[in-house]
Amino acid sequence: MSSQIEQLAINTIKLLSVDQVSKANSGHPGAPLGLAPLAHIIWKNLKFNPKNPEWINKDRFVLSNGHSVALLYSLLHLFGYDLSIDDLKNFRQLGSKTPGHPESETPGIEVTTGPLGQGISNAVGLAIAEKNFAARYNKPDFTISDSRVYTILGDGCLQEGVSSEASSLAGHLKLNNLIAFYDDNHITIDGDTNVSFTEDVNKRYEAYGWNVIWVKDGNNDLEGIAKALEDAKKSDKPTLIRVTTVIGYGSLQAGTHSVHGSPLKADDVKQLKEKLGFNPDESFVVPQEVYDYYNKEVVERNQKIEEEWNKTVEAYKSKYPELGAELSRRLSQKLPENWAEKLPTYNSGDKALATRKLSEMLLDSVFDELPELIGGSADLTGSNLTRTKEAVDFQPDGSNIGTYAGRYIRYGVREHGMGAIMNGIAAFGANYKPYGGTFLNFVSYAAGAVRLSALSGHPVIWVATHDSIGLGEDGPTHQPIETLAHFRATPNLKVWRPADGNEVSAAYQIALEQNHTPSIIALSRQNLPQLEGSSIEKASKGGYVVHEVADAHVVIVSTGSEVSIAIDASKKLKESGINARVVSLPDFHTFDRQPKEYQLSVLPDGIPILSVEVLSTSGWAKYAHEQFGIDRFGASGKAPDVYKFFEFTPEGIASRAIKTIDFYKGSKIVSPLNRAFYPIHYE
Amino acid sequence: MSSQIEQLAINTIKLLSVDQVSKANSGHPGAPLGLAPLAHIIWKNLKFNPKNPEWINKDRFVLSNGHSVALLYSLLHLFGYDLSIDDLKNFRQLGSKTPGHPESETPGIEVTTGPLGQGISNAVGLAIAEKNFAARYNKPDFTISDSRVYTILGDGCLQEGVSSEASSLAGHLKLNNLIAFYDDNHITIDGDTNVSFTEDVNKRYEAYGWNVIWVKDGNNDLEGIAKALEDAKKSDKPTLIRVTTVIGYGSLQAGTHSVHGSPLKADDVKQLKEKLGFNPDESFVVPQEVYDYYNKEVVERNQKIEEEWNKTVEAYKSKYPELGAELSRRLSQKLPENWAEKLPTYNSGDKALATRKLSEMLLDSVFDELPELIGGSADLTGSNLTRTKEAVDFQPDGSNIGTYAGRYIRYGVREHGMGAIMNGIAAFGANYKPYGGTFLNFVSYAAGAVRLSALSGHPVIWVATHDSIGLGEDGPTHQPIETLAHFRATPNLKVWRPADGNEVSAAYQIALEQNHTPSIIALSRQNLPQLEGSSIEKASKGGYVVHEVADAHVVIVSTGSEVSIAIDASKKLKESGINARVVSLPDFHTFDRQPKEYQLSVLPDGIPILSVEVLSTSGWAKYAHEQFGIDRFGASGKAPDVYKFFEFTPEGIASRAIKTIDFYKGSKIVSPLNRAFYPIHYE
Repeated sequence: MSSQIEQLAINTIKLLSVDQVSKANSGHPGAPLGLAPLAHIIWKNLKFNPKNPEWINKDRFVLSNGHSVALLYSLLHLFGYDLSIDDLKNFRQLGSKTPGHPESETPGIEVTTGPLGQGISNAVGLAIAEKNFAARYNKPDFTISDSRVYTILGDGCLQEGVSSEASSLAGHLKLNNLIAFYDDNHITIDGDTNVSFTEDVNKRYEAYGWNVIWVKDGNNDLEGIAKALEDAKKSDKPTLIRVTTVIGYGSLQAGTHSVHGSPLKADDVKQLKEKLGFNPDESFVVPQEVYDYYNKEVVERNQKIEEEWNKTVEAYKSKYPELGAELSRRLSQKLPENWAEKLPTYNSGDKALATRKLSEMLLDSVFDELPELIGGSADLTGSNLTRTKEAVDFQPDGSNIGTYAGRYIRYGVREHGMGAIMNGIAAFGANYKPYGGTFLNFVSYAAGAVRLSALSGHPVIWVATHDSIGLGEDGPTHQPIETLAHFRATPNLKVWRPADGNEVSAAYQIALEQNHTPSIIALSRQNLPQLEGSSIEKASKGGYVVHEVADAHVVIVSTGSEVSIAIDASKKLKESGINARVVSLPDFHTFDRQPKEYQLSVLPDGIPILSVEVLSTSGWAKYAHEQFGIDRFGASGKAPDVYKFFEFTPEGIASRAIKTIDFYKGSKIVSPLNRAFYPIHYE
Repeated sequence: MSSQIEQLAINTIKLLSVDQVSKANSGHPGAPLGLAPLAHIIWKNLKFNPKNPEWINKDRFVLSNGHSVALLYSLLHLFGYDLSIDDLKNFRQLGSKTPGHPESETPGIEVTTGPLGQGISNAVGLAIAEKNFAARYNKPDFTISDSRVYTILGDGCLQEGVSSEASSLAGHLKLNNLIAFYDDNHITIDGDTNVSFTEDVNKRYEAYGWNVIWVKDGNNDLEGIAKALEDAKKSDKPTLIRVTTVIGYGSLQAGTHSVHGSPLKADDVKQLKEKLGFNPDESFVVPQEVYDYYNKEVVERNQKIEEEWNKTVEAYKSKYPELGAELSRRLSQKLPENWAEKLPTYNSGDKALATRKLSEMLLDSVFDELPELIGGSADLTGSNLTRTKEAVDFQPDGSNIGTYAGRYIRYGVREHGMGAIMNGIAAFGANYKPYGGTFLNFVSYAAGAVRLSALSGHPVIWVATHDSIGLGEDGPTHQPIETLAHFRATPNLKVWRPADGNEVSAAYQIALEQNHTPSIIALSRQNLPQLEGSSIEKASKGGYVVHEVADAHVVIVSTGSEVSIAIDASKKLKESGINARVVSLPDFHTFDRQPKEYQLSVLPDGIPILSVEVLSTSGWAKYAHEQFGIDRFGASGKAPDVYKFFEFTPEGIASRAIKTIDFYKGSKIVSPLNRAFYPIHYE
């Protein structure tokens, strides 16, 4: 029942996608063939301006089944984004704008997808951000925000646990600005879904509190898809529209998994082009009327909408100058001037406190100042200390436990979902800085999302408390060992382990100032003294001399809860005439970005360096000749007993410092910062 | 409606649990108070012999909400396991048998739990193993296996995605030997579940294909619980019994989250003991009649059942000598003699092949020999090449796509679920060696389960293909960088990255011979040549000289796909008069366990050592003075283009070898294997 031009447009999308995969001889043609009609209907309905991809009130489109990316590139090209036919011809080639999975650097791509389950979970985060943004800025007479989030996901996304976590929360939060289309094509890589996936998806989503609609012929029933979409817009819940399709529709291999991840054969492409009324000898063909149709029907309409919105915002700024200024500031991705004056500072006489407690005090101090800060915890609020005193919970309007204007999210025990949702919140724009709490050990549950924060450059913050054996009795199931080695080895990720209050302030200051780098802040359960030698300024360099001695025989470099013990060790060594400088190195990533000269002033040539940290020694050789750490699992017991057992005492550190000095006696000692060669293509 | 002795027993369980937490002044009293009646009913019904915890036909009990461990210790003590009142008094103390969460080293504890969502997923694995074990050994006239798996889980476990993945698969597989009790107490750490968890759990589990029963008063309705349990046994599906309870039942803080994770106050303990008819001035009290009751009603009955089973097995061995011998062998946790003769070996003239392909050929060769081998893939069968030619799928009996005797599991796109299920299969016993395939990068999705494999010592094997930028076009979302650094930093985990066919055989041989150590085998997508210098024997040491030269100026140490490029670099360097030894180091963990003398013969003093691997350099300083790697994210493009871009070519390696030689010229060079001091308490 579609018009001729619509069918031509859909066929163009299909063949552009197939041509990309064929030209690259690599990629996934099946899903684009099944999804082109659906994508056409969604994009026809989408609110966006291809010339201003950063428009805050655009609708967001997330391709959660990211392997179908050729479809997305076809759409971006046809709808006027900065992606040329030549770019499509370079699909999956080194250095192209069209890599093998969607990467958010490409204009028009909201979030990086491919790792399954992430996109739909990012979409939940985008929807949360929109609800919060609208609640803060909309007024009865001014609609600043009314955008929606659309996403397509496949069977794979539904099977991944991360999507279960995020979808359950989306239902709880009644995010009716979220419309998800489930590509029900019965095929995964292993073949028919009946080999592993026979659950009743509709019922499961109803159980989560979603509105569920089923379109049974997604290959042809354009009206049915369009009607479902309109119905979804009216719901007071998030909607899952199950669209039954045939993978590779039109191909000779339609409906089989062989069409999933390999190019179509030449004869198959030929018959497909003929079937769709295209010249089989031509590739990358776009009839001019398709460009014109999309430009007129969609792009021009949307540009008018954006113009209207711009006028609304101008009027808003006059009527609500304070909120208007805040809005402008946030849209420019800048923090308020002088916000950092709110950061607490400490002197060595101040009370010993757990760094998780210092984190809570800091959040209390800055929370009102930064409306872009939106926090939460994966059901460990009382342990992570992530909820500020005045915070309101982010909950559905009309519930009696919070509102959409609230900025504290009760994530439930859903670390991976929280990570992916935070990525979505950050991807919304408006300078959102999401933070989320859990135990450091359980950030690993979210490794898939943390990696994508780093790869996509989402400035999210993990408040990762209970950061070592110092958590004590909960034992080895909860004590991180490999965790910091893992995350420090992840590119573009700051991993702070502050030693006291000033270092906590430095960690948050730098983390909040990032626009393209996520941070993990590892915090202690146990109390730590305020150090004499620390300051926000020094710690902001990522590493500094916290305890200086004349004529050092050894440098002890440490982080977090071990820094004060290292200083005690230095004092003990002094009694035996040994001079031990102590360096605090709260974040490798920040320290690595200081001038080399500064780095070498902290960790110089000529003195042996010993690292001390109650976690895996792996990765420390970058800064220290010798490493004292824990390369086994921890132990359940009172924290002081466990520290003593592993010899992380002034005596235990001092004895290893002496062994380090002895071992290097008579050798030419080169700082580990000096290397035979340095990386190329560094980030 | 319970008898007096039952009530006394339940009260004893409650107070023993409360006393443990109070004595330790640390732990979780709330759940045990709510769950004691349920636990009593389950354990009364359980088939086990406390004097023979390894009995293969015992029922398994898994406490998925592991923080309730005080409850489990009380049960183990009362039901006659080797856990004394003194052990209970040492709850959560360093070196005790009663750590803060259940650890499988304690007799009677099936799996280590605490990290939420894992236990229920392990239970699915235990149920799969039982179905497979029964299908292989039961005969119409002999029941060798008919045990069940019981598990208690809380709201937290249900919120975690890993449990969604495993539960969906359990429903698909119709595992009616699995009975899960959901402690529906409306409380998580953040307070009432209505802040984040309002989904309809019953409906969700029905959607997964489970049988769902609801007991609405779990604190008092013992008959209701018992009836639900009997009904569950008759189901042809897995059963979820939702048991509504009050957390901390009987405490003054009952029904609030303040009773979750902190000891009860002294006056609260006092009133509770009085209420339950115990002397408030005494602790750790067990009335003799409770011991007698459990011993007579449960232990003695079960010992008779085990005796009968032993007789059955003896008769079975006479009637089915071949299967009987196999059964005996498996119960002794030993591989068949001479099995390793089936491992393929290669010569340098043999065809270049991807190591994932070599892995497939190996699995084909040994699969029939090893009935304990039970494999699968997270929906990447055709890419991981994990399915052997003759494999039958593990599917419900009566389906037309496999049987319970099948040994190939279609996990679906559920990596974390797969990891936790593999842990459960391994925990079943009978020498099960589960392996599971996914891309190396997505093993990270399962980090929570991998960590528990290592901590608990489950000998599972990850077939981790597409192990680097060598996967090419899929790009940075799929190219691991930090992954090996992460897993190599995890204690008790072997991480193989074989360079050719002989190294693949060595990796599998050692992985399969483990009874207490898991392995990840990282495999290439691209073809690699068979090396002249490799052999199974050499590679079995974890590291060896693969290309020797006289009077080496430099040692190049490498793994996997880069070893052959390093050898080419050595040949290129030879042309300039530079002698470069090449070392292949396929597994750090295995190499670390060789005699120091051997290790130093491979990586000696006096020669600078350069590592070469197309992943993060982090962790390599343990073996090499200088590291050539990739400390940024990868790139989408043809694999050879990407290798060239990052300079992993003979020329790129050679130039860095020269820089390494120059940098260390004139220095005293000490092998990184020689350290100033060595770890204490090593694993």
